[in-house]
Amino acid sequence: MQKADFLEWLREGSISIPAALLTEYKNMHLTEKELVLLLQVLHFAEKGNEFPTPAELSGRMASSAFDCTEMLRTLIQKGFIEIKDGFSPDGIRFEKYSLDPFWEKLIDRFLQSRKQERVHARQVEET
Amino acid sequence: MQKADFLEWLREGSISIPAALLTEYKNMHLTEKELVLLLQVLHFAEKGNEFPTPAELSGRMASSAFDCTEMLRTLIQKGFIEIKDGFSPDGIRFEKYSLDPFWEKLIDRFLQSRKQERVHARQVEET
Amino acid sequence: MQKADFLEWLREGSISIPAALLTEYKNMHLTEKELVLLLQVLHFAEKGNEFPTPAELSGRMASSAFDCTEMLRTLIQKGFIEIKDGFSPDGIRFEKYSLDPFWEKLIDRFLQSRKQERVHARQVEET
Amino acid sequence: MQKADFLEWLREGSISIPAALLTEYKNMHLTEKELVLLLQVLHFAEKGNEFPTPAELSGRMASSAFDCTEMLRTLIQKGFIEIKDGFSPDGIRFEKYSLDPFWEKLIDRFLQSRKQERVHARQVEET
Repeated sequence: MQKADFLEWLREGSISIPAALLTEYKNMHLTEKELVLLLQVLHFAEKGNEFPTPAELSGRMASSAFDCTEMLRTLIQKGFIEIKDGFSPDGIRFEKYSLDPFWEKLIDRFLQSRKQERVHARQVEET
Repeated sequence: MQKADFLEWLREGSISIPAALLTEYKNMHLTEKELVLLLQVLHFAEKGNEFPTPAELSGRMASSAFDCTEMLRTLIQKGFIEIKDGFSPDGIRFEKYSLDPFWEKLIDRFLQSRKQERVHARQVEET
Repeated sequence: MQKADFLEWLREGSISIPAALLTEYKNMHLTEKELVLLLQVLHFAEKGNEFPTPAELSGRMASSAFDCTEMLRTLIQKGFIEIKDGFSPDGIRFEKYSLDPFWEKLIDRFLQSRKQERVHARQVEET
Repeated sequence: MQKADFLEWLREGSISIPAALLTEYKNMHLTEKELVLLLQVLHFAEKGNEFPTPAELSGRMASSAFDCTEMLRTLIQKGFIEIKDGFSPDGIRFEKYSLDPFWEKLIDRFLQSRKQERVHARQVEET
């Protein structure tokens, strides 16, 4: 093992995900495959690619490009991902994925879980 | 939305995963379900539970407790997880999952990918 | 460099801090020394030590134990840290630092910055 | 507090730093001010600004632009930061900070601490 390899590891960096995502995705009716696809889209965006192709996604996933296309379609239909227009500095239009609807759903779901816990805590107190 | 909810979100914190994990798990012959199960085991350990039951894991996953038991068994057989003995301050023995073999496999896989890139870069230069 | 060293690096893990902390600590009237001290307290807590001594903190900081004592005192006075009582499973009382007041201040400060941006955006629109 | 504020918080994201950085910066002869300046440079780079000005850095730090200029100069002299040339897609040259020397120093320092621990452990065994 060489120091250059370690340096490359550090350069690739880490991805930080809210702990609530791991505890709530099930309640958001997402499968593990869909969750990981969303993380891949996030990671591509952090590296500057805001519109990864199904082939690029499938290159990192245990799913075919066809399956990735299907999953993207499903996630758009269920309102987790949106396709938005962006414009480059030279005015060229491009498409990109926005995960804002996904974050909004996560916030909603987290707030709902908190409410349920409070109701539950009150019921326990009253008995 | 209340400030107490936001505070709770911050208290739950974030999980940090090496970027290499997202790009290499496929080459490590892990499925998305197995990847997420490993992340769940990591997250439980960070919160102080080093031996989550299949029921606890299944409570957060789109998989039954039976499926989680099977996946844990497979991951142990394939050498990603180990069961180790720990001892509490009062000398009571307990079992815990160790993900060290998983991290070792990730390092090996990362180094192998780096080697392939170097070979590939040399071939491109020579042509 | 040995693989065991790399494994140890992975075991030590990463610390995840909200980006807002880096952009807002100045507006919270915290110095860099105080910010890093708070991060050290957070990191000790994540590793299971919820009441690090000034000597332990100073062992990792470019500040003497005396300076760390003074900084802790200041942070408590300014309402960033609280000392709270905890109880071990055997009923033994212990003291620990709570950073809840610090997170609350960060939330307040973040919301205030957002409000200022909105006011500013409206003023720009009107002119 | 509005949901839009929470969404903005999520969009700003988190910064992930290796735990070894918090335990080793002191041994790398970095002050807290210098450590935070390096984190700010990292964070600017993640957001697409690879050559923040002293004024931009000072806008987020409890230090004047003059002090930031001095600190940057010192960090370059001590070999933590390098100024490198980059080229935009249209062939325009620009300057950017590289933190590679800083990561290399952190790796060296981490490996040295590990060696010292091993020597120490052997000495304890022999007595």
